[in-house]
Amino acid sequence: MPVDLTPDPAVAELAKRTAAFVREVVVPVEERHAGVVRDDAVRAELQRAAREAGVFAPHVGVEHGGHGLDMRGRAAVFEEAGYSLLGPLALNIAAPDEGNMHLLEAVATQEQKERYLAPLVAGEVRSCFAMTEPAPGAGSDPAALTTRAEKVPGGWRIDGRKWFITGADGAAFAICMARTSGAPGDRGGATMFLVDADNPGMTLVRHIDTLDESLYGGHLEVAFEGCVVPDDAVLGAVDEGYRYAQVRLGPARMTHCMRWLGIARRSQDIAVARARERELFGSRLADLGMVQAMIADNEIDIAASRGLVLQACWELDRGGSAAQATAIAKTFTAEAVWRVVDRAVQICGSLGISGDVLLGRFLREVRPFRIYDGPSETHRWAIAKRVAGRVDR
Amino acid sequence: MPVDLTPDPAVAELAKRTAAFVREVVVPVEERHAGVVRDDAVRAELQRAAREAGVFAPHVGVEHGGHGLDMRGRAAVFEEAGYSLLGPLALNIAAPDEGNMHLLEAVATQEQKERYLAPLVAGEVRSCFAMTEPAPGAGSDPAALTTRAEKVPGGWRIDGRKWFITGADGAAFAICMARTSGAPGDRGGATMFLVDADNPGMTLVRHIDTLDESLYGGHLEVAFEGCVVPDDAVLGAVDEGYRYAQVRLGPARMTHCMRWLGIARRSQDIAVARARERELFGSRLADLGMVQAMIADNEIDIAASRGLVLQACWELDRGGSAAQATAIAKTFTAEAVWRVVDRAVQICGSLGISGDVLLGRFLREVRPFRIYDGPSETHRWAIAKRVAGRVDR
Amino acid sequence: MPVDLTPDPAVAELAKRTAAFVREVVVPVEERHAGVVRDDAVRAELQRAAREAGVFAPHVGVEHGGHGLDMRGRAAVFEEAGYSLLGPLALNIAAPDEGNMHLLEAVATQEQKERYLAPLVAGEVRSCFAMTEPAPGAGSDPAALTTRAEKVPGGWRIDGRKWFITGADGAAFAICMARTSGAPGDRGGATMFLVDADNPGMTLVRHIDTLDESLYGGHLEVAFEGCVVPDDAVLGAVDEGYRYAQVRLGPARMTHCMRWLGIARRSQDIAVARARERELFGSRLADLGMVQAMIADNEIDIAASRGLVLQACWELDRGGSAAQATAIAKTFTAEAVWRVVDRAVQICGSLGISGDVLLGRFLREVRPFRIYDGPSETHRWAIAKRVAGRVDR
Amino acid sequence: MPVDLTPDPAVAELAKRTAAFVREVVVPVEERHAGVVRDDAVRAELQRAAREAGVFAPHVGVEHGGHGLDMRGRAAVFEEAGYSLLGPLALNIAAPDEGNMHLLEAVATQEQKERYLAPLVAGEVRSCFAMTEPAPGAGSDPAALTTRAEKVPGGWRIDGRKWFITGADGAAFAICMARTSGAPGDRGGATMFLVDADNPGMTLVRHIDTLDESLYGGHLEVAFEGCVVPDDAVLGAVDEGYRYAQVRLGPARMTHCMRWLGIARRSQDIAVARARERELFGSRLADLGMVQAMIADNEIDIAASRGLVLQACWELDRGGSAAQATAIAKTFTAEAVWRVVDRAVQICGSLGISGDVLLGRFLREVRPFRIYDGPSETHRWAIAKRVAGRVDR
Repeated sequence: MPVDLTPDPAVAELAKRTAAFVREVVVPVEERHAGVVRDDAVRAELQRAAREAGVFAPHVGVEHGGHGLDMRGRAAVFEEAGYSLLGPLALNIAAPDEGNMHLLEAVATQEQKERYLAPLVAGEVRSCFAMTEPAPGAGSDPAALTTRAEKVPGGWRIDGRKWFITGADGAAFAICMARTSGAPGDRGGATMFLVDADNPGMTLVRHIDTLDESLYGGHLEVAFEGCVVPDDAVLGAVDEGYRYAQVRLGPARMTHCMRWLGIARRSQDIAVARARERELFGSRLADLGMVQAMIADNEIDIAASRGLVLQACWELDRGGSAAQATAIAKTFTAEAVWRVVDRAVQICGSLGISGDVLLGRFLREVRPFRIYDGPSETHRWAIAKRVAGRVDR
Repeated sequence: MPVDLTPDPAVAELAKRTAAFVREVVVPVEERHAGVVRDDAVRAELQRAAREAGVFAPHVGVEHGGHGLDMRGRAAVFEEAGYSLLGPLALNIAAPDEGNMHLLEAVATQEQKERYLAPLVAGEVRSCFAMTEPAPGAGSDPAALTTRAEKVPGGWRIDGRKWFITGADGAAFAICMARTSGAPGDRGGATMFLVDADNPGMTLVRHIDTLDESLYGGHLEVAFEGCVVPDDAVLGAVDEGYRYAQVRLGPARMTHCMRWLGIARRSQDIAVARARERELFGSRLADLGMVQAMIADNEIDIAASRGLVLQACWELDRGGSAAQATAIAKTFTAEAVWRVVDRAVQICGSLGISGDVLLGRFLREVRPFRIYDGPSETHRWAIAKRVAGRVDR
Repeated sequence: MPVDLTPDPAVAELAKRTAAFVREVVVPVEERHAGVVRDDAVRAELQRAAREAGVFAPHVGVEHGGHGLDMRGRAAVFEEAGYSLLGPLALNIAAPDEGNMHLLEAVATQEQKERYLAPLVAGEVRSCFAMTEPAPGAGSDPAALTTRAEKVPGGWRIDGRKWFITGADGAAFAICMARTSGAPGDRGGATMFLVDADNPGMTLVRHIDTLDESLYGGHLEVAFEGCVVPDDAVLGAVDEGYRYAQVRLGPARMTHCMRWLGIARRSQDIAVARARERELFGSRLADLGMVQAMIADNEIDIAASRGLVLQACWELDRGGSAAQATAIAKTFTAEAVWRVVDRAVQICGSLGISGDVLLGRFLREVRPFRIYDGPSETHRWAIAKRVAGRVDR
Repeated sequence: MPVDLTPDPAVAELAKRTAAFVREVVVPVEERHAGVVRDDAVRAELQRAAREAGVFAPHVGVEHGGHGLDMRGRAAVFEEAGYSLLGPLALNIAAPDEGNMHLLEAVATQEQKERYLAPLVAGEVRSCFAMTEPAPGAGSDPAALTTRAEKVPGGWRIDGRKWFITGADGAAFAICMARTSGAPGDRGGATMFLVDADNPGMTLVRHIDTLDESLYGGHLEVAFEGCVVPDDAVLGAVDEGYRYAQVRLGPARMTHCMRWLGIARRSQDIAVARARERELFGSRLADLGMVQAMIADNEIDIAASRGLVLQACWELDRGGSAAQATAIAKTFTAEAVWRVVDRAVQICGSLGISGDVLLGRFLREVRPFRIYDGPSETHRWAIAKRVAGRVDR
């Protein structure tokens, strides 16, 4: 059996349906709100519409009301959802909830699933993932983790400070990564805890004002101070947090790529539409060589990103860690998406940096993607180390 | 006498004083307002402080209370002013006022100077330059000008629509470019008019929501409808507007570059300071090769931009149009500044895209510079045409 | 059935065998000749060894003694063959013979196959493809074809001049493209002719001295002057030449990419080996950030190219023209391979530009690939035109 | 006195004369030899013509028959000389002789000047500079110097191996850098020695086959084995070799840039000429946007390089080490020149990689410039270190 890139018909159909739903239902809402929604009623209405259209929560198992898409299936569908900044919210596949569902499905106990996963899948609650810390804590180097959890009778007491905790404002619970053994610098000894938002030991310190603004619930600084959780708040096993983080991070990197590829395509569509209608110096923009070069480079960047994401997804679906493939795909795609949006802005000229189209918004949203989930430099370092470390090349 | 790059001592001293003023007085105000001020009291206070520091309006003649800097002198001083987004506002050398003063000094009658230039130089009023039009009007191609001025007894009636008119909200007057002969597509037949803001025929239609937000008075869409002005509102001679536009545009391009080079240096300073203090994987960021590469590329981009700007300024000071030199300098600098700020963001990581430093703001402010005053593509086209047209290479 | 990237086991096994053969048998010969062989005995010996290793002519049908690889299978095997400049020669899959076999299999009559294809497949003879003409003839724009074929009793008389005819010196026959109707500029009216090398009307004018030198038989300028061929020299149908050219060009573009990807991997391997052993400033090169960035970018470029080639091959195997996919893959890969070899040179420093490793040779060989088979600019133009022309985006 | 970029009239006149000489006399010889000359008669004839044209050895003092150009003056004249690969040879300003003259003028005793400098200036002999060593010796890291000189009665005995010793074949003497104290890794303890070519302890081991081939006398591997030289062979003071190396290296970097800028301009001229005459798809190449972008980028790269070189030259002329400025100028120019030649090749298409124009040759010649005299990465590291080390930014 040779390599086969034919998409699964059911996936293709779902992707097509998702595309139609996003264009018809989501984009108008997005344009009305200039890409940024902070209103639970709007979110609820979008999710209701997605459920009605049969495209809601496609990544979770059929038993949870989803479509049970594997990573390759997500690649097709999430890109369509990502065509609007609000598409992932509508489908309940936005970060960080989507990655948390993935993690909970893989690691949580039956009880934890009922309590945390079920309402999350249903869109009744939101969640956050509390791992990143301000310097010199866990960031590009996860091993620098400084938040500690000490054993206390019947549970654990967590102390530490997190930031860039996406979606924390309004989240029903956090998955918090804390050090249960070892010292900052060790690549082990971390544990994940489920912390309810009403735990008095967990405080939302502030919204961080960031260049991007579209992720629902913002990016927050969160303090854990004498935050006591019971023993059954441990997610998976004690001291296995780094392993679970990998379970979450590889796929999460790829779903980020998928969603942002949607924005890249959207940007290209806006730019091409403009280039087809706008005349300059007696030619359509679309007939000017420098504009054509930008349009072509956008096509190339999108196609190349898609190929790398697919490769990584296939490796993940086969059960591998796909560490190298996801690092390659994430690094390239984050930079490619940025280039695509930037070129789209340039093609549109003054219009492109005005609020009359959403390109300026997209530019702001995608820039952090070269930093979030590992800066390009960290990934390049890891890619090169793996290459140089291979004994038998 | 060989080429001499030694700065004039008086200019060097003024640049040094400006640098100190901006760091000590302006930057704190800028950081308090996150780079965007829309409050006349703040503007007035900054200008008062600049006057007190002896650095106000350095570009206008001594007879107007300035320092009479030529373009080379401006290169040194404006870069220091540009170190803060509010520095040019404080010194009264921000766009578009600075370019308008330059134009009025060169073209206005004595009466016009007294009425329009004097209060502008003093910072008592602001102004705007109404040239750019929505597609398919004057933009990258100035010859596409569609706004018309018809002769009426005792004056002219202007009709047309402009957009991206920077600083229009609150401006006391506009310099409006309108077609007095010929048809869109002709490279002639335009005239400049001085239009008072209280002219009932001139309406501010809307603020255009743009990626950049720091230019005082915003970017507006402005309508001229049956806008009648008297004969002495003509700036210079009838039908000579394109020639005057060149008088304004070449130097204005360069002063943009100077100011943005200040932001580039500021960004580099922020990034280098961060790289010196932040540790990752057991090294200072400043000792990691990929960070060093970004720091070095920033130095190179800044130095190269500065060299190109100086070359163009020297040509302008000699009385040339410097069309090729300003196009080269503008194209390179606009892209170089963008790269510098982008790398600074990357070096700072999450911090870089947070509001805790102003880099995200700077990124938004400099992006349009690759479009304003002629998109890079239009300049490249013009550069190449001049090269290919030279008969004797 | 989801997308499946698992290689066919038989293909994987053949690729592995090819890899071993190239490393063990071909590379030593290549290094002995510094990458350039012009000796039929060496060629014959390499092909004998390939036949013995069971890796000869893998692309042709089993009935011709090959492995009947489809395009996806070729992607895996040709990349391994391309690991040495002489690998494709050894396997008899070098340009232009490989593309000509592909064309003859698709279009030739049974008689033509016996006379031309059979000995070509066997490696007994070589061939060339005479399409490109000096300016202002057929080049980036195939429609500019100026070589004409006039009907004469019993056959055709061909007149015209071709250049960059790869492999012409020593070829047993040429496939010559000539205009049989219409005028230069028309996208129709061309016919392909089989011309024996001993035809007195076909003359090898000169070897063109090119930057690349490894393609066997060189690049030649060839004159057709009163070159009479019989009616059965027509390949396929009269006036259908452009259609057949597409049959040849799409796949030929991809097999070029496959082979050059082999050289990219080889270059990366040389650079990584060097980076692992060479110390500088107290560190291994492989531990210096700027070197790691180059190593990582090479991995990314290779992976992205491979993904694009695979996509295009899959489309070709499904019977499509894959015009957009091959243009995208060719453009990206040609530039990516160039970057990879260039970075490998840089990593190796002085050694990299010395003849002590073959990187300088590789740099020379891959540069023209951004021009041959359509310059990147022509492809970008075509890519953009297709995008802008799509009615329903 | 403001900054003044007006060239000195005498320099301008010499530059103009040089330009005419190179175009009329040198270029025809270069084209006849495809850029590579290895024949003393040709070299002698070119130098005779240069002397006759009054453009010979412009950099040495008037007392030596030159024009006493400072670095700024050289910038103007050497670029014109560099317009042909053979221009520097004709003017006797080719590497490494030009740098050696500079060094000898600055450091040599009167006796040494008479014996070594005088015939070198006159073009009667050639020389070489023996510093670089194969790994792990002195290369990117000069402190890694392993060649040793031991004191012996009446002189020194040098032992070590050098490579990439440009011009060694046929040189009358070498300036050899050897360690007289300390150990590899120390940034001190080196001494320079004048070694006559007929010293039996100095052996030319082999010509290194390099990508570039135009530097007269090739790049050689040279062995010093029991090479005894008298005490008066010491150039300058013992243990001061690193300091003298800086005297030579800063200016030498800049003169390299000047010469290669000449090749960049030549390449641009060839490409522009082609773009003006060649038609494609019904347009001149020069009217196609993607070609225009390349032409414009070439202009920009050349202008920016020139500005950076001028800045560094001015600093050198003022007596500074100009370490940062020369590093910036060298890094940018080496990469810019490479881009310019590469784009010129691309513009010319197949012609560009053929021997019918010299662009392929130029591409080979300029590639090593990103490695010679310090790879770009080493310079970037040094640039960043200086920036990060500045206490008061």
